[in-house]
Amino acid sequence: MNNKTDNPMQWIERYGHGGDVWTAAEVFGTNTSDLLDYSANINPLGPPPGLYDHLRQQLSEIVRYPDPTCRRLRARLADKLGVRSEQILVGNGAAECIQLAVDSLGVKRVGVIQPCFSEYESAARKAGCHVFSHITSPDQLFLPTVSDLLPFIEQIDLLFLGYPNNPSGNLVERDVLLEMAQLCEQKDVYFGVDEAFLDFLPDAHKRSLLPQLQRLPHLMLFRSMTKIFAIPGLRLGYVIADAGLIDQLHSRQTPWSVNGLAQSAGEWLLEQEAFVSESQRYVQQERERMAATIAAWPGVFLFPSEVNYLLLYIKGISGRRLQQRMAEKGYLIRNCGMYPGLDDGYIRLAVKQTDQNQRMLANLQAAIAECR
Amino acid sequence: MNNKTDNPMQWIERYGHGGDVWTAAEVFGTNTSDLLDYSANINPLGPPPGLYDHLRQQLSEIVRYPDPTCRRLRARLADKLGVRSEQILVGNGAAECIQLAVDSLGVKRVGVIQPCFSEYESAARKAGCHVFSHITSPDQLFLPTVSDLLPFIEQIDLLFLGYPNNPSGNLVERDVLLEMAQLCEQKDVYFGVDEAFLDFLPDAHKRSLLPQLQRLPHLMLFRSMTKIFAIPGLRLGYVIADAGLIDQLHSRQTPWSVNGLAQSAGEWLLEQEAFVSESQRYVQQERERMAATIAAWPGVFLFPSEVNYLLLYIKGISGRRLQQRMAEKGYLIRNCGMYPGLDDGYIRLAVKQTDQNQRMLANLQAAIAECR
Repeated sequence: MNNKTDNPMQWIERYGHGGDVWTAAEVFGTNTSDLLDYSANINPLGPPPGLYDHLRQQLSEIVRYPDPTCRRLRARLADKLGVRSEQILVGNGAAECIQLAVDSLGVKRVGVIQPCFSEYESAARKAGCHVFSHITSPDQLFLPTVSDLLPFIEQIDLLFLGYPNNPSGNLVERDVLLEMAQLCEQKDVYFGVDEAFLDFLPDAHKRSLLPQLQRLPHLMLFRSMTKIFAIPGLRLGYVIADAGLIDQLHSRQTPWSVNGLAQSAGEWLLEQEAFVSESQRYVQQERERMAATIAAWPGVFLFPSEVNYLLLYIKGISGRRLQQRMAEKGYLIRNCGMYPGLDDGYIRLAVKQTDQNQRMLANLQAAIAECR
Repeated sequence: MNNKTDNPMQWIERYGHGGDVWTAAEVFGTNTSDLLDYSANINPLGPPPGLYDHLRQQLSEIVRYPDPTCRRLRARLADKLGVRSEQILVGNGAAECIQLAVDSLGVKRVGVIQPCFSEYESAARKAGCHVFSHITSPDQLFLPTVSDLLPFIEQIDLLFLGYPNNPSGNLVERDVLLEMAQLCEQKDVYFGVDEAFLDFLPDAHKRSLLPQLQRLPHLMLFRSMTKIFAIPGLRLGYVIADAGLIDQLHSRQTPWSVNGLAQSAGEWLLEQEAFVSESQRYVQQERERMAATIAAWPGVFLFPSEVNYLLLYIKGISGRRLQQRMAEKGYLIRNCGMYPGLDDGYIRLAVKQTDQNQRMLANLQAAIAECR
């Protein structure tokens, strides 16, 4: 039980992310299977029924090298998205796509709007870039405005924005996003919009800047198939952009980084539209149910979310102590003290299944009382 | 049928490698399943019996993020290899490990001994390094000597060597390798020894420099689990080196690049020692049988191989034309004209199963006659 020290290598977020049940089990001295994971933002209904059968039938494909350029999957994505195949790069999760962007575009100065997904900064540092942070405030619900970008944008070559953002779960208005994208064009700044969680919104297609891509040659839309389809262990993401940009990203990609089963799963998953709609409805309903419960708790501020996770600020409490307490009760929650712009009072919870959520919230309420 | 043009994008090796049945099917206008693949060097006995069952049982693990640092697999590897866990980095195939080495060690000038696996040069160029080539001759069976490295080694920060080499299938004497490694230490040059195919040698453990690792802090041993276990579609490799070097490589790695099924398969595969021994015996016997057949063909020079592939020089023939001819007969062979130091007369053949090899060789003999 080392989690009370201040050495970050003792934190369960030592690798910068939630969902690390492996480290959690080490730190809390349990088995990975003893913890119900509320720290990773994975669709509670996933994977779609039939995926395991599909993969069982495809297992013998592992004796072949994967297609190094994911032709079939890109063609299906292109059809579905109404873009050309050449505008899509498939990666080993969105994480690889983000890394390829900072590695291949010749950028030196990367801008991030904190608090946000830590990979933008990590990837930029791996590529030797300088990282510039603009920190938003809880008063603005961590949503940047166009004026926040001025004069910030003058300092950078590439800007990342979570849309929706993580860990806050909300997103700027589409008009604001478009204005930001246009500003990036004017200033010759690449704009990486991370749409990894956009699929959880029923009107995802209306929110995305995808239809504007043609007029925004600096725009990159990062997408993940691991969240909505609950396949983080398989690894699958992609990025949509101008074909010239995609070429640059591809020239930096390590061959066969997208394994054969992920490619095959991806093709199959693109057809599961009913599953996606059902997931959107379910997550929305469960999130609202959780929010209604939490709203009644004194000293707890819940940030508005449109996706499958909730950011909470709990007055007068240590998120790390609460995390420890919840682990003793069998739950892994995300302590958000590591995010720039947040402090140890913030935690993040995934939206899971109804009965799980009810039990978890009862335990959380008790844990908060015990920690105060 | 574009394969007669000189545009490399029309070559089936346009992505630099064999085993690309996807491109082959495009170029030759067939289905991927219509070609028996002699261009990828995969164990003909693999995967080991039981792997598919193991993976079927593990499928539901895809809903969890993979362990970002592959702790369990590294611990098993460490036990087996007699090194510390901290001396091992697991990657998305050996290809990722090679890329991490050139990306993370601050090297600017990379040396390769041609003809060799094209990824050393590709990875180095992706990292913005200058590549220096020493080209060996067929007279020396493409095996470099220590004196070949002088003064070549003065120009470089990192040297790659295939051990065994690909496409030639042979390897320098262990004493020569040790001398090269010591020279690299003296000159402060990193030495990347690619042991991806070493597992096919019955005395692999006696050939490797692994026991000398402690005294050779610039040495990196790259290994692949995709060849001997026939799982190129799953992606799994690793590198063994000084713990400080491994730290540097790891600091550059994209999170979760090794998918969960690959990690789980890796743990299971490490126990399949009988399968490895049987594969070594089988491949040796089949290779010798193939070699005996080819030895009787006039105008064909067969290079001595210790692994599961054979390099041939066929006098007065175009390897690309022969490849086309063989595709019409249902076989995909590796045309080696793209390797620096080789010309269009060289081809490479994998060692597959007895009956397949016999039929393939009969077809090849006919195709050679037709092409002359």
